[in-house]
Amino acid sequence: MTRDELTRLDAVDPLAGFRARFSLPDGVIYLDGNSLGPLPAATPGRIAEVIGDEWGQGLIRSWNDAGWIDRAGRVGDKIGRLIGAAPQSVMVADSTSVNLFKLLSAALRMRPERRVILSEAGNFPTDLYIAEGLADLLGRGHELRCVAPDEIVTHLQPDVAVVMLTEVNYHTGRRHDMAAITAAAHHAGALTLWDLAHSAGAMPVELAACDADLAVGCGYKFLNGGPGAPAFLYVAPRLQAEMIYPITGWLGHAAPFAFEPGFRPAYGIARATVGTPPIISLSALEVGIDLALEADLALVRAKSLRMGEVFAALTAELDVTLMTPMGSRGSQISLAHPDAYAVMQALIERGVIGDFRAPDVLRFGMTPLYTRYADLWDAALVLREILAAETWREPRFHARRAVT
Amino acid sequence: MTRDELTRLDAVDPLAGFRARFSLPDGVIYLDGNSLGPLPAATPGRIAEVIGDEWGQGLIRSWNDAGWIDRAGRVGDKIGRLIGAAPQSVMVADSTSVNLFKLLSAALRMRPERRVILSEAGNFPTDLYIAEGLADLLGRGHELRCVAPDEIVTHLQPDVAVVMLTEVNYHTGRRHDMAAITAAAHHAGALTLWDLAHSAGAMPVELAACDADLAVGCGYKFLNGGPGAPAFLYVAPRLQAEMIYPITGWLGHAAPFAFEPGFRPAYGIARATVGTPPIISLSALEVGIDLALEADLALVRAKSLRMGEVFAALTAELDVTLMTPMGSRGSQISLAHPDAYAVMQALIERGVIGDFRAPDVLRFGMTPLYTRYADLWDAALVLREILAAETWREPRFHARRAVT
Repeated sequence: MTRDELTRLDAVDPLAGFRARFSLPDGVIYLDGNSLGPLPAATPGRIAEVIGDEWGQGLIRSWNDAGWIDRAGRVGDKIGRLIGAAPQSVMVADSTSVNLFKLLSAALRMRPERRVILSEAGNFPTDLYIAEGLADLLGRGHELRCVAPDEIVTHLQPDVAVVMLTEVNYHTGRRHDMAAITAAAHHAGALTLWDLAHSAGAMPVELAACDADLAVGCGYKFLNGGPGAPAFLYVAPRLQAEMIYPITGWLGHAAPFAFEPGFRPAYGIARATVGTPPIISLSALEVGIDLALEADLALVRAKSLRMGEVFAALTAELDVTLMTPMGSRGSQISLAHPDAYAVMQALIERGVIGDFRAPDVLRFGMTPLYTRYADLWDAALVLREILAAETWREPRFHARRAVT
Repeated sequence: MTRDELTRLDAVDPLAGFRARFSLPDGVIYLDGNSLGPLPAATPGRIAEVIGDEWGQGLIRSWNDAGWIDRAGRVGDKIGRLIGAAPQSVMVADSTSVNLFKLLSAALRMRPERRVILSEAGNFPTDLYIAEGLADLLGRGHELRCVAPDEIVTHLQPDVAVVMLTEVNYHTGRRHDMAAITAAAHHAGALTLWDLAHSAGAMPVELAACDADLAVGCGYKFLNGGPGAPAFLYVAPRLQAEMIYPITGWLGHAAPFAFEPGFRPAYGIARATVGTPPIISLSALEVGIDLALEADLALVRAKSLRMGEVFAALTAELDVTLMTPMGSRGSQISLAHPDAYAVMQALIERGVIGDFRAPDVLRFGMTPLYTRYADLWDAALVLREILAAETWREPRFHARRAVT
């Protein structure tokens, strides 16, 4: 493979035009859009409008006149189009962790005779923490049972209430088979709760076609919604009337502005909301979603897979170990190195931004809307130089920072 | 009282200079800052910087380089200075409702032998919904007991685990005596959980001096943080090590980036966080807080009380009933009228923005930083004209809107 070959791939890339729709800093190859997506070029103007016109001029009237009251549902419906969900089955709300708590709690109530939350040992820690915390809170003997990623289906005993999985593993990039696991879970009488943090916007997801029950996801990774963008949740329409949520706030009430003394749950997905959403951050998220909706997700997925192959090939001879199972993966390539933290610091200093995941992983996001094949060549070259020169041994790359 | 007298009060108002620090629309008298505060003039520039520089240029590096990782705590500490809280006892997080759920759950765990949440019958409905929902979730016989606002202390039986009150009632504007109720609650072995939605930024609050245990509050009312601004929570330093939160997300972990499989709670107030905060909305909130910190809260309170007296006097002869107890109140004046909804719609059409609260309340916020005494004269005059001409009987003012 040569750089020229990759440049030729870029020249015929049907997604190439999307790169200009982002504001990217000069001198940076950004392979961390799976952690924080970059700024869409349209976001600053839209947010200036939301702040200056909707808030500044409209004031409280904008809840009606600018449609703030419906915005979380509107953006939710748009996300629904990216993840194969019917209208009114996705809502933007809270953080991924809080949404996970809400849905997991409701799932356990729907299977009162079962006590096991089945998950993957290497699942994103916060998902496991939330499950443990909920089990402890309820005090009814619920158990979080974590098994190897390829053993989920064989552990679907009759005591499993819910299978809680992140579709694409944050650490390895391994992707679960949502359709197969969901079918097996249903056969065993269990519900499924999918975390789409590393799926939504990165590849076609078919929640309805897979008959998934519940899902949560993140707005600031592949959806390019901005730092800490609000998260989303999905509830299959067939379950919405059954859901009993643990956090019963006023926006989940059937008549939020009637100020009734008792809680009457709203009909449909609105029931899953709790408090007022952060309108400015929500509006930034909408810009990212609108941009994602312009792209053909099948093309995004095809380019992402090819980028992964290219990057794996470019780094195959280096002193790193490929951790991502190439036959079943999301949109990242994970490479192990015993001093991954320092190597990543050295890469970032050279303008190649990926991220480190403890204890030993270099993680590189493949994000087809703004990354070129040639960028992968350049990034791999920098990595090769750092490893060859052992640049990463320099003490300054070992100073730990709060976020790595 | 004459308009000239009020204009003279404005001329000598030590807070008068703050009005220019807000972007207010022309032709509007805004008496709804207790629902959504107006736009500080500095907010658009700051948000353009956060989006363009911190997100656009800094990308993921801004978690360290721009201090995103510490921002919720930094803004929390600033709020702490407005509510009499020590550093590292306030954190910005989630929504008011979610924070209430977290703190109420932790409070009940600290009083396991007690089963009653004591509150006020007319408390903000979401607070009551959250308590009911939590009791239902736990399934251990917890009871939400609501009594008349002046009977809290007499209901402090030994079964009360926590007294949960909104310091200033959203409906009537009545203010509780935080010091007296907290002392009585402690004497009875109960904890206190205060909702400061209508207090923070509106008047001096002395959480530490009152020895309050727990509190939550809202960023988008008197703190002018923008629509759906993230909320905050307070935990007395003496309790922080005891708190067991129900929602155990990664940011509340002692080592969030170690990605340990099990949850180890952070030391201190950070333990109360769950997921990633919405950085853009959080940064807008900080601008509002910074502005509030420039004002002397004693002056704010004095002007607010005087504004309330003026507005009550100006509307005393009208066909409305004053609901706010003038001797013990927050920063709003509530007037009852049998057709309050339509009256408020007619007011808004004339540029006087307050809000309606079901079933019959016209609610007017007294916000000293940008409202002039003369504005109150003008607003009362419009109200007088609408009531005299029975303008509000016109059918168009009766069409219900989503948010009123």
